[in-house]
Amino acid sequence: MPKVADQYLKVDPWLVIEKGFHPDRSRVSEAIFSSANEYMGVRGYFDEGYSGDRHQGSYINGIYESRNIPKSYKGISTSGNYMINTLDWLYTRVSVGSETLDLAKSKFSDFTRTLDMRNGIVVRAFTWNLAGGKKIKVKFERFVSMDTAKLGAQRISFESVNFKGTVKVVSALDFDTVHETSGNKNLWNGLKQGAANGMPAILAETLVTKKKVFSAFKLTSTAKAAKKSWSEGKKVGLQLTFSLAPGGREVIEKLVVNEARFSDKVTTAQAWSQGAALAKKLSATTFDAAARSHTKYWTNLWSTLDCTIEGDAENQQGLRYCIFQLHQTYHGSDPKANIGAKGLTGEFYNGHTFWDSEAYCLNFYLFNNPKAAKNLLLYRHHLPQAKARAREIDCIGACFPFATINGEEDCGLWWIANTEIHVGLAVFYAVWHYSKITGDKAFLYKEGAELLVELSRFYASRGQYGQKSKKFGLYGVMGPDEFKLMVNHNAYMNLLVKMTFEYTAQVLDEMAKKAPSALKALVKKTGLKAGEKAEWLKKGKDTLVLQDKKTGVFEQNEGFFDMPHKDLKSIPVEDFPLYHSWSYDRLYRYDMHKQPDVVLFLFFFNRQFSPAVKKANYDYYEPRCIHESSLSPAIHSIPVAEIGYHEQAYQFAQYASRLDLDNYNRNTREGLHTTSLSAAWMNLIYGFGGMRSDGPVLSFEPSIPKKWKSYSYRVLIQGGVLEVKVDKKNVHLAMIKGGTLDVDVFGKRKKVTPAGVSVALPAARRA
Amino acid sequence: MPKVADQYLKVDPWLVIEKGFHPDRSRVSEAIFSSANEYMGVRGYFDEGYSGDRHQGSYINGIYESRNIPKSYKGISTSGNYMINTLDWLYTRVSVGSETLDLAKSKFSDFTRTLDMRNGIVVRAFTWNLAGGKKIKVKFERFVSMDTAKLGAQRISFESVNFKGTVKVVSALDFDTVHETSGNKNLWNGLKQGAANGMPAILAETLVTKKKVFSAFKLTSTAKAAKKSWSEGKKVGLQLTFSLAPGGREVIEKLVVNEARFSDKVTTAQAWSQGAALAKKLSATTFDAAARSHTKYWTNLWSTLDCTIEGDAENQQGLRYCIFQLHQTYHGSDPKANIGAKGLTGEFYNGHTFWDSEAYCLNFYLFNNPKAAKNLLLYRHHLPQAKARAREIDCIGACFPFATINGEEDCGLWWIANTEIHVGLAVFYAVWHYSKITGDKAFLYKEGAELLVELSRFYASRGQYGQKSKKFGLYGVMGPDEFKLMVNHNAYMNLLVKMTFEYTAQVLDEMAKKAPSALKALVKKTGLKAGEKAEWLKKGKDTLVLQDKKTGVFEQNEGFFDMPHKDLKSIPVEDFPLYHSWSYDRLYRYDMHKQPDVVLFLFFFNRQFSPAVKKANYDYYEPRCIHESSLSPAIHSIPVAEIGYHEQAYQFAQYASRLDLDNYNRNTREGLHTTSLSAAWMNLIYGFGGMRSDGPVLSFEPSIPKKWKSYSYRVLIQGGVLEVKVDKKNVHLAMIKGGTLDVDVFGKRKKVTPAGVSVALPAARRA
Repeated sequence: MPKVADQYLKVDPWLVIEKGFHPDRSRVSEAIFSSANEYMGVRGYFDEGYSGDRHQGSYINGIYESRNIPKSYKGISTSGNYMINTLDWLYTRVSVGSETLDLAKSKFSDFTRTLDMRNGIVVRAFTWNLAGGKKIKVKFERFVSMDTAKLGAQRISFESVNFKGTVKVVSALDFDTVHETSGNKNLWNGLKQGAANGMPAILAETLVTKKKVFSAFKLTSTAKAAKKSWSEGKKVGLQLTFSLAPGGREVIEKLVVNEARFSDKVTTAQAWSQGAALAKKLSATTFDAAARSHTKYWTNLWSTLDCTIEGDAENQQGLRYCIFQLHQTYHGSDPKANIGAKGLTGEFYNGHTFWDSEAYCLNFYLFNNPKAAKNLLLYRHHLPQAKARAREIDCIGACFPFATINGEEDCGLWWIANTEIHVGLAVFYAVWHYSKITGDKAFLYKEGAELLVELSRFYASRGQYGQKSKKFGLYGVMGPDEFKLMVNHNAYMNLLVKMTFEYTAQVLDEMAKKAPSALKALVKKTGLKAGEKAEWLKKGKDTLVLQDKKTGVFEQNEGFFDMPHKDLKSIPVEDFPLYHSWSYDRLYRYDMHKQPDVVLFLFFFNRQFSPAVKKANYDYYEPRCIHESSLSPAIHSIPVAEIGYHEQAYQFAQYASRLDLDNYNRNTREGLHTTSLSAAWMNLIYGFGGMRSDGPVLSFEPSIPKKWKSYSYRVLIQGGVLEVKVDKKNVHLAMIKGGTLDVDVFGKRKKVTPAGVSVALPAARRA
Repeated sequence: MPKVADQYLKVDPWLVIEKGFHPDRSRVSEAIFSSANEYMGVRGYFDEGYSGDRHQGSYINGIYESRNIPKSYKGISTSGNYMINTLDWLYTRVSVGSETLDLAKSKFSDFTRTLDMRNGIVVRAFTWNLAGGKKIKVKFERFVSMDTAKLGAQRISFESVNFKGTVKVVSALDFDTVHETSGNKNLWNGLKQGAANGMPAILAETLVTKKKVFSAFKLTSTAKAAKKSWSEGKKVGLQLTFSLAPGGREVIEKLVVNEARFSDKVTTAQAWSQGAALAKKLSATTFDAAARSHTKYWTNLWSTLDCTIEGDAENQQGLRYCIFQLHQTYHGSDPKANIGAKGLTGEFYNGHTFWDSEAYCLNFYLFNNPKAAKNLLLYRHHLPQAKARAREIDCIGACFPFATINGEEDCGLWWIANTEIHVGLAVFYAVWHYSKITGDKAFLYKEGAELLVELSRFYASRGQYGQKSKKFGLYGVMGPDEFKLMVNHNAYMNLLVKMTFEYTAQVLDEMAKKAPSALKALVKKTGLKAGEKAEWLKKGKDTLVLQDKKTGVFEQNEGFFDMPHKDLKSIPVEDFPLYHSWSYDRLYRYDMHKQPDVVLFLFFFNRQFSPAVKKANYDYYEPRCIHESSLSPAIHSIPVAEIGYHEQAYQFAQYASRLDLDNYNRNTREGLHTTSLSAAWMNLIYGFGGMRSDGPVLSFEPSIPKKWKSYSYRVLIQGGVLEVKVDKKNVHLAMIKGGTLDVDVFGKRKKVTPAGVSVALPAARRA
């Protein structure tokens, strides 16, 4: 795995610290110091403006524009929604005399930027060295409130070290922002700006989708400041002028309320008056009061969400960072929201949601935040677009989009969108896993069953029979491995299609027995016909999953075993990423694969396969995997931990937990690899932690890396909280909340009580 | 084959006649009545303007613009050259009093439009019925000179039937034309306009590629006309005003010289002065004199090029039309020119040249016009672009573009351009066939050998070995059948790759013996290394060509035999063309194919395969072919004639010969299917004519359709002319020029003399 860390941030268990500004990594830091609360997110850019290289990005979940893609062939999506840069609500400009603060030009010292993961507050402080030896200490603090979604807060303090002078501050809301990947165009139509309930306020709407965003702020200041209204273009705010004497310190607080209106039916007047009322209400607080309740939220959360590692500060920090970022990006407040590939930290991937949500992120929520897990599934239950998409590609049922914001297919690259149709299979996996772990029959018998019926319909209509083999499967697809195009009988997809059919039939049978009225409602809603279940079972039975009988190795797709071989060690390091240096078609012509495909289903349905089969497949596929997806190494760390390749497991896990902090893929500047962050958690729980959740009970076969003294994690299960602690000698399980729980530990059934149970760690499980 | 004729033109052996104007087929007629001479071409649009639906298109070979395609992944072409609409040199506006001639609005009667294929002159005549019962007969004649490439001629006559009045005519050169497929934009920058040597003249250049076109005209008139200069925008010309009395007739002749300058180095002054001199020289003639020498050209040509069919006027007319159009589009005057898919008759396909030139058109020229055949090959000998393209896609040697004007790859659809890499294989076939038939060793040992070396290099570098099978072949390709994407071991391609390797080695061996100095020059030019030949022979030997041993059926590509079957009869007729009604990805998932793939190589190398194998393959593949390419039915007519499926052969041939005249594909409005026109000729010569040219001597096994009394054709061979006549009883072969020729007729060697030889037609060869 040719991935090398680029570490420049300080290692600390709870803090992320940039000591001294790194202008060459300005965009990387902006991504890393991002703040978000699911409703909105803002990159860690400089509030006061910066004429150096930066990407000033501020996003609101659900605020997107639409590209006008010309109609070409049938089935090629013409929807082109993309999340756009909204307003810069942190907009600040500072000047002293004729000098304007700009860290690209101004002289400064003692720069530190810190994210405290215990409360999600980002603090940036430095001394501004003005002409003539004048010095002023400047500090910026910010957070977006986790308990009050539409509220953002900023505090700026100025402390004169050695001079007397006048400071001028402009604080505003700025809709003159540009969307970088649309040629730096401004995508906002200003509707109204001025004062609302005495607060500077502005309302703007997107050009095509006509989504409105209202913003207003309350500004308080310790200084006897001269305040006046300030406006320029699509910016509205206040200008403050105040004096500072040596040792004097003045503080400005800005409480901002951003309210998005997603329907184009909302009028300007409605948006303005409702926004103003909300702003008045939400901003009737102080920075400190809002920070207190925001911090309380995080304190509560860490009490179950935290995972500890003793003896490895780097991974401890990395793991907490991943958990922190994933949670602040998404925690299930709104079933209309989902997780973009870059969360709310950048424009790359257009804010699109992929199958990552179900395939990679769901497990994290399932064991920490079941409501969020359910909301992720409810997002997919918005079926009309998926049903329309299925018809558009000549199928029935529901085809979930490869890339989407609002449920429409936003990927116009037909050879991906129309072939990488395994998103629905991840939805099946998620419904199955969620229902199994939570026992949420209300969901399963209603939304879950409807999803399953429409999924079975889709795959039954998209699949075909080989004319000689008489075997059923998917033709012309791209599996999880995006280095194979238009292949037939991808093993991952065919296996999950078969399981979708079988699970759907099983749920229908169960409903017939246990919930006949729910079944009746389902039949009415879906128009389920008599023969459909039998058709699915027949097709499931006929489905081809290619496997070499002798070695037990699954064939990734028909013909894979005879694909030309590439010795990955023979590829020069400078060729990576291959997407940039190889002819695009060449990527598709080797046994080399981009990310786990067979290895992925061996993880999803781990207990169904023997250790020998898993080892054989891993040994065959891993040396052929170039890990060009950030999701890849993390998934590999799980089987290697199971097999006992301790060194490899540690390497993969280190990559996963510090992927962005150490900018392993050299593209963190574009935004965090948000959906990959969950992998760090999975590495601990499923990798070293050895938990498996696909069997009849949770099972545990942990191992411990050489460097670690101990580690611990907690999972929510059956309404209780299970804590797992592993050290060099033992694994200790205890219910720290709730009653008892049956689990398997190294193959033996154990009853976990609040008092806990300890099992000795076999020697082979210690690296 | 769900293709139905839409016949509206009169059937005549030598004329194409539109009796009465068909405004609903205005664009179809414009394509059909196109005039061209390889250098330039003009659709049969109305000289006098027309406010109804029309496509005013006028093209010059080699005048193209370039689209700015953003760089995406490596190997995806960013070149986007496209042939553009040049000037309307026939520009004419006619008015009488306040009435302007416009067949969309004016009243008229007795409309006829005629193309005389004996001389290529298009005549359009009608009576214009003016207000108050006034009538005036109007006739337009036009041709582009076959013997003076840059000369176009127009003659207009006006005859008053019953009134006295004043006619006003504006005759001009118009660069305010628009390119329809670029959003009706004008793509010309006017450089200079005015008078040159007393003639109205204009010079303009393309916006991006900076190609210049100079045009000037000489106007003469029988009338005592008041002439004055006329100009408007990028139009320059003359305005004539003259009187007509009842029975009076006045004639205006316009001789236009268009000179294109392809290099952006030519200055405005140079282009103007040289253009003016040329215009003065070439236009120093009259319409009649120019028409005479133009007609003489055609008369000479038809003396060898003509094919006759007795008893089937429709096919006689269709066949002559195909020959006429193909020849006027391309006849090898310039090795920099080639044949666009629509010739010079429309903008569709952007004027691009495809593999059609070698795979479908070359045979026509080879036996009628060997110089043109050679020039088609010399066009490919412009290797720098093909070598650059090979490197761009991580290969060596020469990769010929899928679609091109100047040798660059103009197809930006990577999944076609980067996979449908069989153009070079058609070039190999053409070099082999041309060299075999003409014995042109000078070409073979120089340009031919260089082409072969670079082709072998390319396919040796693009091909790969299966890791289990240890077999060589092409992975990730699209064969001639464009309904299969990213397949491995396409039989057509692998077979031709193997043959390319073997033929290259054979030519190198021959050169070593017979032309050592030519070999030395070749080695110097290509840098040919010692081991290369051996590598090609090894790879050729290892090449996999899949064939079912039992049935003899070749497998179109790995896995084809098990592809899901589609009963083509089950597809509703309204689904055709499938490109419009099926989801794009769905096209790729059946054994259904678009056009001949295996069947094509069985034609190219016919004598290598037993009749049983050919029949088995045809019987397997034809029912799976939907003939969505216009090239498809014609190729199929050849094996069916050989097998003796007479009814099918006739249907396919009828389609081929009247493809555009009867608008079978309902898209002739976009331009003629120029490269498919050669198929009509192939149907007669290779289909019914039963000629085969891939064996040691020409062989003949003709058949005759039921309807036909007899037919005849001529082929140039070994410097002589062989005439073949077939009637219900006999086939008669005679050398009408040149000495004797050995041929096989129904498997028996015959010596054809000027006196000729007759062989009885077996009963099975009569439909």
